[in-house]
Amino acid sequence: MIRISLDVMGGDFGPEVVIPGAAKALERHPDVTFLLFGQQERCDTILDRFPKLKERSVFHHCDVSVGMDEKPSQALRRGRYVSSMWRSIEAVKSGEADVVVSAGNTGALMAMAKFCLRTMATIERPAIAAIWPTLSGESIVLDVGAGIGADSQQLLDFAVMGGAMARALFDIEKPLVGLLNVGVEEIKGQEDVKEAGRLIREAGLDSIDYYGFVEGDDLGKGTVDVVVTEGFTGNIALKTAEGTAKQIAEYLRAAMTRTWMAKLGYLLAKGAFDRLREKMDPRKVNGGVFLGLNGVVIKSHGGTDAEGFAAAIDVGHDMVRNGLTQKIENDLKKYHARHPSPAGPEAA
Amino acid sequence: MIRISLDVMGGDFGPEVVIPGAAKALERHPDVTFLLFGQQERCDTILDRFPKLKERSVFHHCDVSVGMDEKPSQALRRGRYVSSMWRSIEAVKSGEADVVVSAGNTGALMAMAKFCLRTMATIERPAIAAIWPTLSGESIVLDVGAGIGADSQQLLDFAVMGGAMARALFDIEKPLVGLLNVGVEEIKGQEDVKEAGRLIREAGLDSIDYYGFVEGDDLGKGTVDVVVTEGFTGNIALKTAEGTAKQIAEYLRAAMTRTWMAKLGYLLAKGAFDRLREKMDPRKVNGGVFLGLNGVVIKSHGGTDAEGFAAAIDVGHDMVRNGLTQKIENDLKKYHARHPSPAGPEAA
Repeated sequence: MIRISLDVMGGDFGPEVVIPGAAKALERHPDVTFLLFGQQERCDTILDRFPKLKERSVFHHCDVSVGMDEKPSQALRRGRYVSSMWRSIEAVKSGEADVVVSAGNTGALMAMAKFCLRTMATIERPAIAAIWPTLSGESIVLDVGAGIGADSQQLLDFAVMGGAMARALFDIEKPLVGLLNVGVEEIKGQEDVKEAGRLIREAGLDSIDYYGFVEGDDLGKGTVDVVVTEGFTGNIALKTAEGTAKQIAEYLRAAMTRTWMAKLGYLLAKGAFDRLREKMDPRKVNGGVFLGLNGVVIKSHGGTDAEGFAAAIDVGHDMVRNGLTQKIENDLKKYHARHPSPAGPEAA
Repeated sequence: MIRISLDVMGGDFGPEVVIPGAAKALERHPDVTFLLFGQQERCDTILDRFPKLKERSVFHHCDVSVGMDEKPSQALRRGRYVSSMWRSIEAVKSGEADVVVSAGNTGALMAMAKFCLRTMATIERPAIAAIWPTLSGESIVLDVGAGIGADSQQLLDFAVMGGAMARALFDIEKPLVGLLNVGVEEIKGQEDVKEAGRLIREAGLDSIDYYGFVEGDDLGKGTVDVVVTEGFTGNIALKTAEGTAKQIAEYLRAAMTRTWMAKLGYLLAKGAFDRLREKMDPRKVNGGVFLGLNGVVIKSHGGTDAEGFAAAIDVGHDMVRNGLTQKIENDLKKYHARHPSPAGPEAA
């Protein structure tokens, strides 16, 4: 049985999307139970429409909801201990839930998750990992926006954590990990990235296979299982790819409706277009995973619908079932046992 | 009359692509003359196939060609004064040509261009500007790989130079300029980017309209005319977009050939697909423009074909015809007249 905690008030639509999304996820995973945190009056009538979900859920009323535009510091001040976001995270800390899923504002969610769950002993900075659709399946890309900048040791931590997530998600023994850079030659790139390449190579990690540098166009190709970069670049790469996909979908739509021949062709090839749309559906890969915390936190897109929110719950379910946190902890422990830092890992 | 200097040996295919590309460009711009720099024996037989081009060209033999994998320092050591790349740039410096186009290796081309043409008086770091296809037309994105990192003053310089290029290319009076960042709230982002936002706002530039921050997905939307970022992020964004476009084209190809219904649909909609292909054709937007040098240098993709190389020549032609260098110089002069730096602009 997997127990999932939900911030029902998170996202652009709150309970209108979160509750139907949870109901969808429950159909796929009948073993799941839910802890729901939100405003009782707003949720009650919606929840009544999903009796199965209601039966498998415990509802906790929270007076405070974190706004989508609230600054992390403001959200912490106003919402700590009392908001639906905080309390849904706290359920993971107290052991009442195995994972929390929120479509709430990323900055506030990360701030509260750090404050409540704390980062793992040797981790200085958590990361958000995205699941990236590629020509050869899926890859993991991190960090896509937990922080800005990362030194070489933090990039190494990202490589270890991303590798653990790939093993949990893709069932590969030794995931192939690459560092995002502007050129494949060793001479190019940021100092921190070059230094991280040296560190990872020298670390001789058992848990991953280090590929070397990859470039922006390797993301879509799926050259490696895990792409490591700092959060500024990762976030821009992610949004650029999403934007490009939308742009091409729009070109395609315009082209297919311009003449009656094109419209007829579209109708005949509709099955193929449906498959393509499914392949490009951003809801399918919804669910950023916070890595490096003492607990599993999944961030859903704020603007997603019930299908998309259910996909984020799927990701959380997968991460718990495959022991993500334990895998990360083990891999970090193995690395630090072989590479004690001058002041010991506790100091980090 | 516009005089164009070509590094005939540059690119993956050298004269086999550059010479036919020049011939194509000549058809579109009969006012153009060429200075060709390359190895005489390799070029002669190819050039003989294009008598019109031969008539409008002067050929200069060069013993040395810069390799596509040569490091910039090595290329400078081996190729300064003697290589086809150097001499094609030098023709701009000496005033024999108005612009140089090369498909050669980017690092070497930038190193040689800086060494030969020098950066403009107040510019510390040149940038490479890419023309980016968007839903509303085209935008300019810079820097896409001339340097790594940029401080706030350099980002402001990029904004001014990109604005000048937009005026030259798009015929807009006051281009809308945005800074690439990870969030639209003023609180987010790199320190240098935030500081650049303040600097640009306070500068009250006449030549551009400052929009504020934009995110990765604004690139494809065409939210602004000019997107400013440092070279590491810009390069990764560019390659990520190119990779995503290829990925979707591949999905589309696979979908349209899977069933006979889809194939029939494809045939009927072929005109629409052709338009789409043309819209997504990377050759159409080939031609990175080096900004901040005393002369116009255009970098073509190394792996492009004759059509793509001709497009790079088109960009060079446009930049000269619309007085890119003068526009940049004027805009920088106006800015520095109003904002003298403590040590005077000459010290920068």
